[in-house]
This record gives sequence, structure tokens and C-alpha cells, in this order.
Amino acid sequence: MDSIKTYIEAHKDRFIAELIDLLKMPSVSADPAFSQDILHTAEAVKAALAAAGCDKVEICETPGNPIVYGEKIIDPKLPTVLVYGHYDVQPADPLELWESDPFDPVIKKTEEHPQGAIYARGSCDDKGQMYMHVKALEYMVKEGKLPCNVKFMIEGEEEVGSESLKWFVKNNHAKLKNDVILISDTGMLANDTPSITTGLRGLSYVEVEVTGANRDLHSGLYGGAVANPINVLAKMIASMHDEHKHITIPHFYDKVEELSREERDEMAKAPFSLEAYKKALDIDDVYGEDGYTTTERASIRPTLDVNGIWGGYTGEGAKTVIPSKAFAKISMRLVPNQDPEEITKLFQDYFESIAPEGVRVKVKPHHGGQGYVTPIDTVAYQAASKACEQTFGKAPIPVRSGGSIPIVALFEEELGSKSILLGFGLDSDAIHSPNEHYGVFNYLKGIETIPWFYHYYAESVKK
Amino acid sequence: MDSIKTYIEAHKDRFIAELIDLLKMPSVSADPAFSQDILHTAEAVKAALAAAGCDKVEICETPGNPIVYGEKIIDPKLPTVLVYGHYDVQPADPLELWESDPFDPVIKKTEEHPQGAIYARGSCDDKGQMYMHVKALEYMVKEGKLPCNVKFMIEGEEEVGSESLKWFVKNNHAKLKNDVILISDTGMLANDTPSITTGLRGLSYVEVEVTGANRDLHSGLYGGAVANPINVLAKMIASMHDEHKHITIPHFYDKVEELSREERDEMAKAPFSLEAYKKALDIDDVYGEDGYTTTERASIRPTLDVNGIWGGYTGEGAKTVIPSKAFAKISMRLVPNQDPEEITKLFQDYFESIAPEGVRVKVKPHHGGQGYVTPIDTVAYQAASKACEQTFGKAPIPVRSGGSIPIVALFEEELGSKSILLGFGLDSDAIHSPNEHYGVFNYLKGIETIPWFYHYYAESVKK
Repeated sequence: MDSIKTYIEAHKDRFIAELIDLLKMPSVSADPAFSQDILHTAEAVKAALAAAGCDKVEICETPGNPIVYGEKIIDPKLPTVLVYGHYDVQPADPLELWESDPFDPVIKKTEEHPQGAIYARGSCDDKGQMYMHVKALEYMVKEGKLPCNVKFMIEGEEEVGSESLKWFVKNNHAKLKNDVILISDTGMLANDTPSITTGLRGLSYVEVEVTGANRDLHSGLYGGAVANPINVLAKMIASMHDEHKHITIPHFYDKVEELSREERDEMAKAPFSLEAYKKALDIDDVYGEDGYTTTERASIRPTLDVNGIWGGYTGEGAKTVIPSKAFAKISMRLVPNQDPEEITKLFQDYFESIAPEGVRVKVKPHHGGQGYVTPIDTVAYQAASKACEQTFGKAPIPVRSGGSIPIVALFEEELGSKSILLGFGLDSDAIHSPNEHYGVFNYLKGIETIPWFYHYYAESVKK
Repeated sequence: MDSIKTYIEAHKDRFIAELIDLLKMPSVSADPAFSQDILHTAEAVKAALAAAGCDKVEICETPGNPIVYGEKIIDPKLPTVLVYGHYDVQPADPLELWESDPFDPVIKKTEEHPQGAIYARGSCDDKGQMYMHVKALEYMVKEGKLPCNVKFMIEGEEEVGSESLKWFVKNNHAKLKNDVILISDTGMLANDTPSITTGLRGLSYVEVEVTGANRDLHSGLYGGAVANPINVLAKMIASMHDEHKHITIPHFYDKVEELSREERDEMAKAPFSLEAYKKALDIDDVYGEDGYTTTERASIRPTLDVNGIWGGYTGEGAKTVIPSKAFAKISMRLVPNQDPEEITKLFQDYFESIAPEGVRVKVKPHHGGQGYVTPIDTVAYQAASKACEQTFGKAPIPVRSGGSIPIVALFEEELGSKSILLGFGLDSDAIHSPNEHYGVFNYLKGIETIPWFYHYYAESVKK
């Protein structure tokens, strides 16, 4: 297994070049304008899996974007690892804030990434992290080091709710049968502080529309006399948090798991500098729910954030209009036990109940996803931990992440297996933001660590 | 003077065709992309004034858009009427809500306009109303009916604050010397209920920017832990009205004139149907400051409305981002005695004072304007009243309008003369909105009424 280092050294330029080719494909799932790019990207992933050594590769049609499936079964009696990842990416806008073209990758050195980082939409989330698994497979197959069976399921709708994947998983239990699911779509604490994600927040995402009059109105003639949908929407949004920054939706917190003092003390041991955090974001202070630390607010507590808002005149200069409609996209991050559909319903009921006379409101649910917590005493978690210890020289810290991979809870429900969230990105990699990047160190370290996971996992299961 | 009816009958098709040509020019002053169209429109207005009989016409350069000046001095000893209007128009967006191209006028019949209305941006505000004066002059000159001197001052920045006009007026007292200013840039109550505007609201218009972190953030990783500029902006906007819909900015109401019970009772006599109002706007209820009627809220009370808001992801689908910045355009309609600069300053101080930790805010003032009230016992008002009575068959009702023509207060200050606001538009004409239109009846009735104003005015002054 030590040959992995030599193999990476010999092939790293090609590994980077192949990833860059994949990153040039604008596989934005949120915007139908990119649907052809989605198909081309799926084809590219299929070809990469075949080249890396999968015996069987296929593009699986779904009601939405296709899923790329690949497998290498060396012995049906051996355990099977299912690798999950996604080839779709977030929209790149606001484009004007990118320092380079989001789909024309460049490598630049940064303070966090002295070996350079690849700047492109999807570099970290998730093409770069998904492709580490393809290259790790290549190594294991070429060098005869694959100790168990492997299946790949790479989807194209993760950034828009994985609806087709849910359908696919429900209809393919036999095909997807596995002993553990391995996912790299999260982060780690720092390049010298490996960590494994043991908890994820769930998600409820809605779009709201507030309608006043049947047409845009002149604010001089009507101002003060009719409901202004923007003012009303602002007021409705504002009323969703109280003065302690608690969310005011009735029953919102009913099922929220309250961690014990001991668990919170344990969490507080993870390295975290509030000063460095504020400096990195250029903010004079943090802002959040009373009674919780920044780390807790971003992991074990649910949230309600407006992700987008628009209405009225937004062009140059001044236009004195009272618009007919105002809109917002609002998401709630949920903690384990909070059911996304139930929360979406609570939101909808509350939003409708607080709408004043003079406006009509609509709530359109987008995708949701269940939160997830994984135990750390399993064979698979221990294998991942040992793999990190092997390549980083220190044991990884188990951490709860604030992000969501809604599909993880579904995997457990449908396929009966646990997921290991072995991510190599950094919080500062700007996923979902302009100038997303992924460290060359992180990419290669992932390729190095993954085969060790297979090694320790297969070894433990054999015992 | 009775020949005006015959003259209109003979020339009305040409009057309409000429206006349509003018409406085809997209003279949007808020957007620099239309700066060439602004210049072409000014040239067209100049040519129209010359053709109508002005002895002297010129394009007057200013620091911004040019002002078209024209005059016909028949005898320096006679009184002089200064006609003010504007050739610039509001932006046409949202374009998708227009039923026809905003700059390709069509004539359609409507319930309010059984004789047809011209649909185009600027048809009512203010090209159509301004052009009535040009055609009225044509009649008076061609038929030898002009009883006094006339000057035209047609500007190109009314929709963006009239900055250049202020400069022009201050620097041209002699050129603009007049006895009364006549303006058609307001409305009347209904086609069978003429009215003259005796009060206008002032305006303070600002753009605000709320900045959180130095980049867009992933709402999973940072949600709940840092200030979200959209949520913060919503909260700040919401806090600008209390539960009685009073504006909460300290000292905002200090100089607001409180009308007596008698004055309010007098106002209440103007025909107004709340049911018809709600039906026309398709709203289940009106919404506004406690203790005032709809008519009062829209005329004698100041307001604070958000005219535009934007931030975060506003495209298709879902993007889980906490944006770095959120923006809003906010305007306040002011009543007489409220000083726009003072109010803008009060807004700015308050907005900055309520910004929470974790964000930075900026307030950028756009244009403002003073409110105005005109007395009804002047010779000029009485002449306008008699002119309406002549052509409509009934005396016009004096009304306070909620709109703003900021320049009117300046005219009085700089030129020492009162303005007569003789408007022929209807509230339902959708000025500043998609599908703006102007009734053919209203256009021709304006052309018919204006010469009678000159007639009665010159007659009264002579006495």
C-alpha cells in the first residue's frame, strides 16, 4: 500500500489535468440552460470510471439528470463499498465577483494553500472530491491493491435536491447493495487537522411570493394607502426571529435534540479561533442565537436564512414604484430529528398566518433533506480514522457539520447502510461562492488516503 | 375661441400621429444606455415647438440632459405664461408585464377610455400631457388667438431628480421671467370629474447597502453564525414602521402639517369609492397609517416605501447562499414643510443607528424634492377653473395629490411665481407601471382646455 505515494508522485500532473478538464464543463443543475452540459459531464464521468478500471459503467436515465453508475466486483463474497458523489455544480453567479472564469480553471497559491489551489466552480464541491475516488480506484486496480468490491453512484442533481437520486435508490436496492457508503462532499478542519464529519444538518427550502395590487403602482399616487409587498415581505421575514434570534415559527424547535453539557464541552475542544474567523470574513462581530457559541450555531442548531430576495426596481437610478410582487428564497438548516417536510409545512402555515390584509402570499417548497448523525464506533468509521492517521500523521477529529447532504439519511433508510463522510475541503474554499477553489494538497491527500480506507476496512471486516 | 373644437376635429389624427412619433423615442433618463435617445427626443421637441409657432427655440446645454426652451413673445407688456413639462420617461421594466412594446405605441379601448387610449411609456407622464401644450399653442398661433406671451421649458431629467433644471433655473432668472407657470404633469379625478391639483408631496429617495462577510457564504457552513445581510435588511426595513404603521424615524413627523377637522371634512367630499378602489387594484383591503382615510394616506400624510430590493440568489431553483450584500431603494413621500434634505439626513442617521453588529451599512441619497401647496384664490387658479368649466361643463375640484413634482417649490423660490397644476391623466393610466396609457379623450380635452386658460387668464390680468 505504500506504493500509493510513488504512484501519485508519478501521475499527479495528469491527475490535476484530468480534473481541470472536468471542471471546464459547466454542469449547473439549477439552470435548464446548462442541460446539455449536464449530459456531457455525465459522459465524461462514465469514461473516467471505465478508464480507472470499472468492469461495468453505465449512464442510468432518470426522470431528471442521469446518474453515472460504475462497479468493479472482484469477489461477491467480499464486502462492497458504495462511493457516492455528484457531478453537478452550483450556479456560478454573481459572475462579476469571480477573479477568473468559473469554468476556466486556474491554479493559484494562497495562504491556506501554499502548494496551490484549483479555482473553478465545483473544484471542491464536488467534482474535485468525487474525482479523488476515481483516481484512488485507478491506483488500486493498476497496482492490484483493491481488497474488496466497489460501486460508484455519481449523480447530477445534488445542488437542487437529488429528486432523481431518491427515485433511483428506491428502485435499485439490489444493484446498489453495499456494506458501507463512502462520501467526500464535506470538509476538514485544516490541512494539518484532519476530521471526519459525524453529523449533518437537514434542509427545508422554500420560495415565497407576496402580491399586493394587480400591477406596479406609482408610489406618489398610492404610497401610504396600499400594502407594499416589499415592506410587507421585509416585515414578515423580520418577524421570523425574535430578539434572542430564536426562530418564531410555532413548534419549530419541538423535535430539536438538546445536547448535554458534556457533549457541548467535547465539541468546544475542536480548534477554533473567533478572532481568525472574524478576520477571514472581515466582520466586526458574529451574529446568532443567544446562548450558543459560533461553532454550535453553525452545527447543532437549526437556522432560517434568506438566500435571495427581489422585487421592484433594481436598475440604475431611481424609480418610484410600488411593485405588484416581491419574492424571497428562504432556507432552514435542520438538526437531526427535525423532519424537513414537517418543518416546511410549519413554515408555510406560519407564513400564511402572518400575512396582513391587502396582500396574498404563496409558498412554494423546493427540495428538503433530513439531518444525520453517524456513530463513531463502527468498523467503517474506525477504518476512515486509521486511514487519516496513516496519511496525516494524526487521528482525525469527529465533527458535526452545518451543511446538508440530504441523501445520506435516505441511504440508511433505503439501503440500510451507514455513510462515512470523509471530506478534504476547507471552510475557506468558498464552495457555493465566487472563487471556489480546492487545494492541490487536499486533492492529492484525498487520493492518498482513500486506498488506506479500503485497506483497513477490508482487513477489519475479514477478521 | 370656440373655433378650438373645429380645429381639433380637423387635425386630431395628425395630433395623435405626432404624439405617437414622440412616444417611439425611448428617452429613459435613469439609464445611461439611452443617452442618445434623450438627445434625439430633445431635438424632436425643439422642432415641434418651432412648427407650432415659437419665434425662438433652442436646445440649452446643462451639466446633464439638455433643456428645450421655446418662446413666443407677442408684446412684452402682456403677461407671460411659462409652460413646464418633461420629455424624459421612467424605465419601462419589468418589460415582460407589458402587453405591447412600451416604445411602439398602440391605441386600445378600455372601460375608462371608450374612445381609446395610447399605450406607451411616457404617453401620460409626461409626453402626452406636455404635447397638449404644443398643440394648443399651434391652434392659438395659427388662428390668431394667443392673448399673451408664452415660454416653454421642457426638461429631460424629471424622472431622476431635475438636477440640471435646478441649475438652469437658478442661472436664467431673466430668460424665464413669467407671471404664472402652467404644468400638466398630474391627474384629474375622472373623465367626467375635472380637478386641479393644489398640493403635491415632496420626496426623499435613498439607496441602502448592507454588507456582511467579505464574500458570499455557504448557508450550511455559516448559517446561524454570521449576520445574513438580507435578514438584517428586512429587519431594518420592518423596524421603520410601528404597529400603527407610523414611521419610526425620530423627528420624522416634527414638521408635518396637521390638517384641521374642517379641512379633512372638505377633502372627504371629493368622490371616492373604497370598493371601486379595491376592485381596480384587486386587493382585499387597503393598508396604511392608523387614523387616516385612504385619500388622506395618499395625499396629506408622509410615507416610507421600498421601491426595490435585491440580494443573494434570484435565479431558477435553489442556491443555499448567504450573500455578502443586500440592497434596497427606499423613498419617502413628504408633505409640505418637511424638508427633503433634512429627512434624508434623519433617515441616514436612523438607518446607521439601527444596524446590528456584524454588518456595515451605506446610505446613498438620490434626488429629493420639496412638497407644495398652491392657493385657490389666485387669478391663475380661477382662470384654470373657468377653462375646465368651459370644456367639461362643470367646475373642477381642487385636490391634494400624493405625487411629487419637486421642481414646483423651486420655481416659486427662484422665479417668484406660482404653478398651476392642470393635469388630464387618470390614476388608472398606470404611469410608472407596465402598460402606461393616456386616453385619446384626455389628450384632446387637454388641447381644448388649455387655450381657454390663456383666454381667461389674459382677460383677468387685463382687468
